[in-house]
Amino acid sequence: MVNVLEKQVSVGLFGLGNVGTGIVKALDGHHDLIRKRSGFNVRLKTICVKNLKKAREVNTAKYRVTANSGHILDDPEISVVIEAMGGIEPARAFIMEALEKGKHVVTANKALISKHGQELFELAARNGVNLAFEASVCGSIPIIKSIRESFVANSISSIYGIVNGTTNFILTRMVNDGKSYESALEEAQQRGFAEADPSFDVGGKDAAQKIAILSMLAFNTPVDPDTVYTEGIQDLVSEDIKFAQAWGYVIKLIALARKADGEGIDVRVHPMLVPKAHPLANINGELNSVYLIGDLVDGQMFSGKGAGPLPTASAMISDVIDVMKSAALIRNFNSLPLVDINNLEFSYYVRFPVIDQPGVLCRIAKVLATDGVSIAELVQPTGNETVPIIIRTHKAKERAMRHAFDEINRLPIVKKGAVMIRIQE
Amino acid sequence: MVNVLEKQVSVGLFGLGNVGTGIVKALDGHHDLIRKRSGFNVRLKTICVKNLKKAREVNTAKYRVTANSGHILDDPEISVVIEAMGGIEPARAFIMEALEKGKHVVTANKALISKHGQELFELAARNGVNLAFEASVCGSIPIIKSIRESFVANSISSIYGIVNGTTNFILTRMVNDGKSYESALEEAQQRGFAEADPSFDVGGKDAAQKIAILSMLAFNTPVDPDTVYTEGIQDLVSEDIKFAQAWGYVIKLIALARKADGEGIDVRVHPMLVPKAHPLANINGELNSVYLIGDLVDGQMFSGKGAGPLPTASAMISDVIDVMKSAALIRNFNSLPLVDINNLEFSYYVRFPVIDQPGVLCRIAKVLATDGVSIAELVQPTGNETVPIIIRTHKAKERAMRHAFDEINRLPIVKKGAVMIRIQE
Repeated sequence: MVNVLEKQVSVGLFGLGNVGTGIVKALDGHHDLIRKRSGFNVRLKTICVKNLKKAREVNTAKYRVTANSGHILDDPEISVVIEAMGGIEPARAFIMEALEKGKHVVTANKALISKHGQELFELAARNGVNLAFEASVCGSIPIIKSIRESFVANSISSIYGIVNGTTNFILTRMVNDGKSYESALEEAQQRGFAEADPSFDVGGKDAAQKIAILSMLAFNTPVDPDTVYTEGIQDLVSEDIKFAQAWGYVIKLIALARKADGEGIDVRVHPMLVPKAHPLANINGELNSVYLIGDLVDGQMFSGKGAGPLPTASAMISDVIDVMKSAALIRNFNSLPLVDINNLEFSYYVRFPVIDQPGVLCRIAKVLATDGVSIAELVQPTGNETVPIIIRTHKAKERAMRHAFDEINRLPIVKKGAVMIRIQE
Repeated sequence: MVNVLEKQVSVGLFGLGNVGTGIVKALDGHHDLIRKRSGFNVRLKTICVKNLKKAREVNTAKYRVTANSGHILDDPEISVVIEAMGGIEPARAFIMEALEKGKHVVTANKALISKHGQELFELAARNGVNLAFEASVCGSIPIIKSIRESFVANSISSIYGIVNGTTNFILTRMVNDGKSYESALEEAQQRGFAEADPSFDVGGKDAAQKIAILSMLAFNTPVDPDTVYTEGIQDLVSEDIKFAQAWGYVIKLIALARKADGEGIDVRVHPMLVPKAHPLANINGELNSVYLIGDLVDGQMFSGKGAGPLPTASAMISDVIDVMKSAALIRNFNSLPLVDINNLEFSYYVRFPVIDQPGVLCRIAKVLATDGVSIAELVQPTGNETVPIIIRTHKAKERAMRHAFDEINRLPIVKKGAVMIRIQE
C-alpha cells in the first residue's frame, strides 16, 4: 500500500470572488492541518479570473493567476478543478471541459447543479471522474455527504428545513425584535446577509434550487428547480409574526421534499407556521438547518452556517479530498413525478386587511364555508379604518383554500396585502 | 473505469444480539436499495455466534451460521468483518486477526475503540485495511465521518453534547413530567432505554468512552476513557430540576472535549445546567446531539437517535461501503495532556439538605466566603425538619468550590445528598 502521506493534489481554481478568496485563505492557512488530517498534500497551483487588474483581498503571488482557462484545463498536473464563479455560463462549459479531460470537479454552484446536474453527472461517470457539490446546499452542513454516504442504507421519506440564511435572518429579526420586513431586510443587507437585489433569496428561488438538489439525492430523481412550487416571504408583515406567536408558532421559510402517497414526490418552498416546540423553530439568524427522516435512522437534524466564504471553503476542501479518494458516482436516476400542491391538505393561517364595518366577518366566513374550509380560530382586532382579520383553519385541500382565498380577495371590503400561510403539523 | 455496479462485497458478522439482528434485517430488507444507492452488492455470507442453539428473531437460513470464528476469519472471499459482539474480548482478538488477514473491519464497540483504538488503527494501517467505527458514538448520527471528512480542513476547538440516550431520557422525564429519578429510571428500563443494571449509563461511563473517541478524532490524541473526569446523574433529585428550571436552565448530562488554554485538552462528563435557549436544551427523550466548533465552519450541530438496532445498523452498513471505497487511515497521533478539572472555572448550582434551624445559612455562607466563592442567588424554601438550601454561585475555581463543598458537607447541620452542578455559559 502506498504511503498516502505522499499524495500530492494540484488544484486549479476558477473565480476569486468571496468563495474563491475563502478557498485561498483556507488552503493557505491550513495546508499542514489538511495534510496531517487527510494524508493529502493539497496545493493550489493556478487561479483563473475574469479581470487580472482587479485588486484582491489575498496575496496571490504564490499562484499562477491567469485569465486563460486553458492554463487550468490543459495542465495535466492539475487533477482537481474548483469552480467558484457561480452562474450557468461559462461555469458549465469549464466544468464540462474539465470532466472531459479527466479532471475531478468541485463546485458550490447550486444553479448549475440543480438545473444541469444529471447531464454533468453522466459526463463525469463516462470519464471516470467525480463531480462534488457539498457546498451547493447549506454551505458547511454536511447534508449531501450524509444523504449519499451515511444514510446510504436508508429509504428516505422526507427532507425539509431552513435552507436560506437571508430569509431566516429577516424572519428572526421580525420575530425576536419586532422589526418590520423592510427594516429587517435593510439590516440583513447592511450585515452582508442579503444582496442589494434580494429577490432571489426572499422570493424563495435560492431555496428552490437547494431543495431540488436534495430531492435529486434523496429520491434519485432530477427535479427542475423552476417546476418547484415556490413562495417567498415578501408579503409577510409584523402582524403575521405576532398572531402566529400568540397561537404558539413561529414563521419560517420551509423547503420540503417528501415521498407523496402513490408514486410522486412533493417538493415545495413556502413560509410555514412552525410550532414553537419543533426543533426548526429554534434555528435563528442566518443559520440553516435540515431535518431528514430515513427508515432506519428515523429523524436526523443538522444545523450550522449555510453560507459565507469560510464555511463554503471548508465544504469544498472536504470535497477535494473526497474526489481524490473515491469515485462515488451519481447515476441510476428515477423520474418520479412532482405532485400538484393543489391536491395536498393543510391547515392555514390567513390574514385579510378589511374595511372595519359590520358584516365583514360574516361575508368572509360565508365564502370559506362555501368552499368547505372550516375555521378553527379567529381574531379581529379593533383598529382604524383598515383592520386585519386573522383566521386559523382546520385542514382543507389547497385547491379549496386557494379558491376561497381568491374569492375573498375579490370582495370589495377586502384590501390588498392578504396572506395565506400553511401550518406545519 | 470499472463498472462499480458489479462490485460484490462478502461480509462476515460476529454477534447476533440486538445490533447483529438489526444488521441482518437491514441488509436483507434493503439489499437492492443499498446496491442502487452505493453501487455495491453487499452480501452477508457468514454469521458467527456463541450459542448455535439460541432462538433468533431473524431467519438465518440464507447464511452460514457457525460458532467457529475461523469460518469468517479464514474465508478469503469475506473482505469485510462486522463486529457486533461488544465487550473487549474476544472482540479484540477477532478484530486483530481480521485486520492481520487483510480484512476491513466495521465495529460499534466503543469500549474497545476508546481503550485500544490506537493499537488497532496502527495494525489496520500496517495491513493496508480500514477499521471503521461510526456506530460507536451516537448511533446513526454521522459525527465521526463529519469530523474526519467534512470538517477535515478545520481546526476544531471544542466538541460537546448529549451522547447518552438513557440519561437524557431520564432527565427529560424528570423535567417535563416532574418524575423522580427512580421512577424515570424505571420507565427507561421498561421501555428498553436502560439496562437492568443501569450504572454504566447513569454513572457517565458510556458517555466517557464516547467523548474519548471524539477527542481522539478532533484533537488527534488518544484519550483513555478511564482518565476522563466523570460524574453521573444518580444524585439528582426533582428539586434540582425544579430550581434549575426556575432559574432558566434545564439539567443535561454533558460530555465535552475542548482545547484548553496552553497545550492540553479538557475532557469531561458531568451534569450541567444548560440555558433554556441553548440548542442542546431542546434535545429531549432518548435523542443524542453533538455540537462542534471548527474555525472555518463555526458551530455545527447534529442530532438524532443515538442507539437502537436499526440506527446502529444504518451506520455500520454505511461504514461497510466506506471501507470498500477508500483506505482512510487514522494515524499521526499527538499526545496532548488532559487538563485537571480542579484548575477550571465554573459557576455552580449547589444544593444542601440541611436541618431547618436558625444560623444554618450563615454557616454555609461563611465557608463559601472563606474559599472565595461568592453567591449569585440563593433560595431557602421552608419545610419540615430537613429543607434544602439552593445556591447559584458566581464563577469560581473548581478546586476552591470543591473544598467549600466538602467543608460544608462536614458541618453537622448538613445532611447527606448534597449536589454540586456546573453551569453552562
